[in-house]
Amino acid sequence: MVERTRFDEADCPVARSVDAVGDWWSLLIVRDAFDGSRRFGEFQRSLGVAKNILSARLKSLVDHGILRTKPAGAHHEYLLTPKGEALFPVIVALRQWGESFTFTPDEPHSQLLDRRNHKPLRPLKVLASDGRPVKPADTVVHKLT
Amino acid sequence: MVERTRFDEADCPVARSVDAVGDWWSLLIVRDAFDGSRRFGEFQRSLGVAKNILSARLKSLVDHGILRTKPAGAHHEYLLTPKGEALFPVIVALRQWGESFTFTPDEPHSQLLDRRNHKPLRPLKVLASDGRPVKPADTVVHKLT
Repeated sequence: MVERTRFDEADCPVARSVDAVGDWWSLLIVRDAFDGSRRFGEFQRSLGVAKNILSARLKSLVDHGILRTKPAGAHHEYLLTPKGEALFPVIVALRQWGESFTFTPDEPHSQLLDRRNHKPLRPLKVLASDGRPVKPADTVVHKLT
Repeated sequence: MVERTRFDEADCPVARSVDAVGDWWSLLIVRDAFDGSRRFGEFQRSLGVAKNILSARLKSLVDHGILRTKPAGAHHEYLLTPKGEALFPVIVALRQWGESFTFTPDEPHSQLLDRRNHKPLRPLKVLASDGRPVKPADTVVHKLT
């Protein structure tokens, strides 16, 4: 297995997030947890991933406090912690970008809908402290020296 | 090198985004492009990544229409396309989550600030079509059958 570079001591929160979440499999596990998957078998069926890979990713997500285990009969379930639930905007941002740029206009895709009225959500907007929409060029990264 | 599972025919926009962006290196390249990096050497210094890995990731980002190349003297620069710029909410979401959960309170980190007044941006909010804030439990994924 390829040794992954660690970003857990980076001073950039993006890099640390990347390190904590792990890899794309882990992000798709988190997506499935938001969609209601709880059991090992549910994640496996959804992702079609090898058991050893799924085990390792679930363990890492538990170790990072993103998922927690809960006994359920002879097995256990994996539930999002508050830290895991807080990844919701990350998943929504990836979903909305994917909807805009990775499907042809006539190509169907799964949709994230408001449970109350089954309408799509609003596109995420990056806003300044005063509520003004900001583009990347309107922002500056203050790096530590 | 480990063969990466492809998600480019998935019907989930999250999975397709993950496929198009590539891997964490690619996401950190996009982050650096937002922060103003343009030249191969700039990305390399920022990321401390091997040249062959960086070359492959830059090429993939260009192939996916996220970056474009622009001649600049004897070399060329890598610039975000509109598709790449649209990843801004993804980067901001990862950054804000990282700020909240991956640093101790007294641990300094880089900050993304409003260029105009040097204040932090607002936390991203997931909103329903009528502007109501929604939590994960307020949403439902409509899957294709």
